[in-house]
Amino acid sequence: MAGKLLDGAAIIGQSGGPTAVINQSLVGVIEGLRGYRQVRKILGMRHGVDGLIRGLPFVDLSALTSEQLDRIAKTPSAALGSSRAKPTEADGPKIFEACRAADIRYFFYIGGNDSSDTCRIVYELSKKANYEMRCFHVPKTVDNDLMGNDHTPGFGSAARYVAMAFMADDRDNASLPGIKINVIMGRNAGFLTASSALARHAEGDGPHLIYLPEVPFDTERFIEDVKGVVAKYNRCQIAVSEGIKDKDGVDIGAKLIANAQTDAHGNVQLSGSGALGDMLANLIKEKIKSPSGKPPRVRADTLGYLQRCWPEPSHVDAGEARGVGVKAAQEAMNGQSDGSVAIVRLSNHPYRVEKRLIKLTDVAAKTKVMPPEFYHASKPDVTPAFIEYCKPLVGELPHFAARL
Amino acid sequence: MAGKLLDGAAIIGQSGGPTAVINQSLVGVIEGLRGYRQVRKILGMRHGVDGLIRGLPFVDLSALTSEQLDRIAKTPSAALGSSRAKPTEADGPKIFEACRAADIRYFFYIGGNDSSDTCRIVYELSKKANYEMRCFHVPKTVDNDLMGNDHTPGFGSAARYVAMAFMADDRDNASLPGIKINVIMGRNAGFLTASSALARHAEGDGPHLIYLPEVPFDTERFIEDVKGVVAKYNRCQIAVSEGIKDKDGVDIGAKLIANAQTDAHGNVQLSGSGALGDMLANLIKEKIKSPSGKPPRVRADTLGYLQRCWPEPSHVDAGEARGVGVKAAQEAMNGQSDGSVAIVRLSNHPYRVEKRLIKLTDVAAKTKVMPPEFYHASKPDVTPAFIEYCKPLVGELPHFAARL
Repeated sequence: MAGKLLDGAAIIGQSGGPTAVINQSLVGVIEGLRGYRQVRKILGMRHGVDGLIRGLPFVDLSALTSEQLDRIAKTPSAALGSSRAKPTEADGPKIFEACRAADIRYFFYIGGNDSSDTCRIVYELSKKANYEMRCFHVPKTVDNDLMGNDHTPGFGSAARYVAMAFMADDRDNASLPGIKINVIMGRNAGFLTASSALARHAEGDGPHLIYLPEVPFDTERFIEDVKGVVAKYNRCQIAVSEGIKDKDGVDIGAKLIANAQTDAHGNVQLSGSGALGDMLANLIKEKIKSPSGKPPRVRADTLGYLQRCWPEPSHVDAGEARGVGVKAAQEAMNGQSDGSVAIVRLSNHPYRVEKRLIKLTDVAAKTKVMPPEFYHASKPDVTPAFIEYCKPLVGELPHFAARL
Repeated sequence: MAGKLLDGAAIIGQSGGPTAVINQSLVGVIEGLRGYRQVRKILGMRHGVDGLIRGLPFVDLSALTSEQLDRIAKTPSAALGSSRAKPTEADGPKIFEACRAADIRYFFYIGGNDSSDTCRIVYELSKKANYEMRCFHVPKTVDNDLMGNDHTPGFGSAARYVAMAFMADDRDNASLPGIKINVIMGRNAGFLTASSALARHAEGDGPHLIYLPEVPFDTERFIEDVKGVVAKYNRCQIAVSEGIKDKDGVDIGAKLIANAQTDAHGNVQLSGSGALGDMLANLIKEKIKSPSGKPPRVRADTLGYLQRCWPEPSHVDAGEARGVGVKAAQEAMNGQSDGSVAIVRLSNHPYRVEKRLIKLTDVAAKTKVMPPEFYHASKPDVTPAFIEYCKPLVGELPHFAARL
């Protein structure tokens, strides 16, 4: 439903786990709205719709200079503050009323699938109230799990961090041989864990084993896999998703964290603890002996929150994150009533994408996992198709010397 | 004791925990030796003196092109392989004999204080045997704990990683407020943990609390510190050294790691586990309630091995690491018999250093900790003197936008 431009304020919010480029999208929306006299003010929500519900004061984004905007765009993590709260049934009207009270006619929400659902709820309430308001979802998630998107802003930068971490850590492991486990973010979708495979450039490079949430994790099989790699290379670098599940689909990591905390979505804490890596390291120490009879050197790192905020993002990702923000604003200015911006890949050689407006319900409250063609069910590894898919998103990686 | 140039081969080894710039020093030595016809061959030890003892084949470094050398210099972690083995009494003669058998007249060992001691042992054996051999130690350690050095190559890059990690993670924490613990490498010296303070640019920026191995850690005091910060800022970012000790000087982290492994130096594993961070996070979850009665959001990350291998080093550090390698070679070519290269700071504004040859025994088997003027005994923080000291070593940090 396209219509005329509405006179009123615009508001922008950020939601969910922040990323290294979520502020690119914020700035993109602002840039896309500037110059339209109908847009009287550009406001920011503090801590997403949670701030609207709690009546936190708005941030006035109207007067920021280009230089300030550029600096904000390059700063990681949600500049407006974010929120993990999941709006309840009763919250929808509160959010909508807060918008109406502030004469808001343009509503932009940067986040994952829940944020798309929030846009949908707010849009439907506005229609019911006969209050014209345009509601747009701007995609963001390091997990890369949004339906309708080839990939999501935030993922490329996190994948770049993971790939660089594995490249460097693999050299560390080669110089002091041992078994090294690195635990990677991703509750249900293995994309980020899979991106560790971009670290490989020559035969023998790690990661040698990649465990995704999409494939049931079996500890006995794991020990055999590690033994096999150690026999071949006298070392082993392992990528493990924090979201690995046993054969019954139960999160293995969640059971291990002391006093694990649960968020508003009912998700039990998986990040911000080294428990899963430590358990796996201990398992190897117990089950694998080196020829000398001593356990091999085993270490576990959990890559943690730096995956989503490391301040040197993928340039490709940064540009796309800006672009989806601009696109959402443009669609609003073109008279579209609502929607979610999606990235669609047009070609891989050369890498080309376009941003399209899709329905809020195409994204809302759904999640994507790795498609079967991206990983092997029978061995802990990704396929060449995944590498082909992921490589253009992370930008150019450092070129290491060949091993001596 | 200066003397004429000796005809024979040179050998270079790398030892201890690798760094992001240890290969700069390797390439520096090679560059410093090139063009001297007396230096017949330039060889690399595989896995340090351990490789010599085990009779591993040498790496021939003589024929590498400038382009290859440049690529090696920019690749993190020991290109020749490293070793954590501490040579025994009986090993000294094996190392020396392996050198004599290969007609080695120039011995370079890149590493920490133990490596300096190895140089000393090998040099003394060569004198006793009346076999002229020049032995040089090239400094390297992310811990920054070598005596006789203003700072050590490898530290600046690790400190840069830590500072950038805290800058970014602090924004992540501000956008989703909670209590965040980051555990940092450093068994006895707190320099790397202290470098987290470089992340602060404005009032309210984290880290809000910094716990060093130099100050006894008291858990009750810790809880009170965290409560105080949360009351003020509604969040708290904490830097904790993996080497914090209780009032009796016992490592707190080492007690927590299941099946903790011990190295040849008798050091119990502190890195490669999230146990310390997880224990502290759990302690906070138990002891601190938010006004709602629920525990606040608490997360712990252990920054791990990426601190020492992240492939984007401090340019200052990279240059100095190259320079100490070149200097060691030059001293050998100038006829010096033995010594360790040290970095001495000449001035801070502008930042200027010089490399000097000091005695092997000035460095060997000693460690430096943070001088008292760099930290407060009465509160968990560093002093402005430390910031002044550390800032030039990490290179320029990203410029984030002011908080909105």
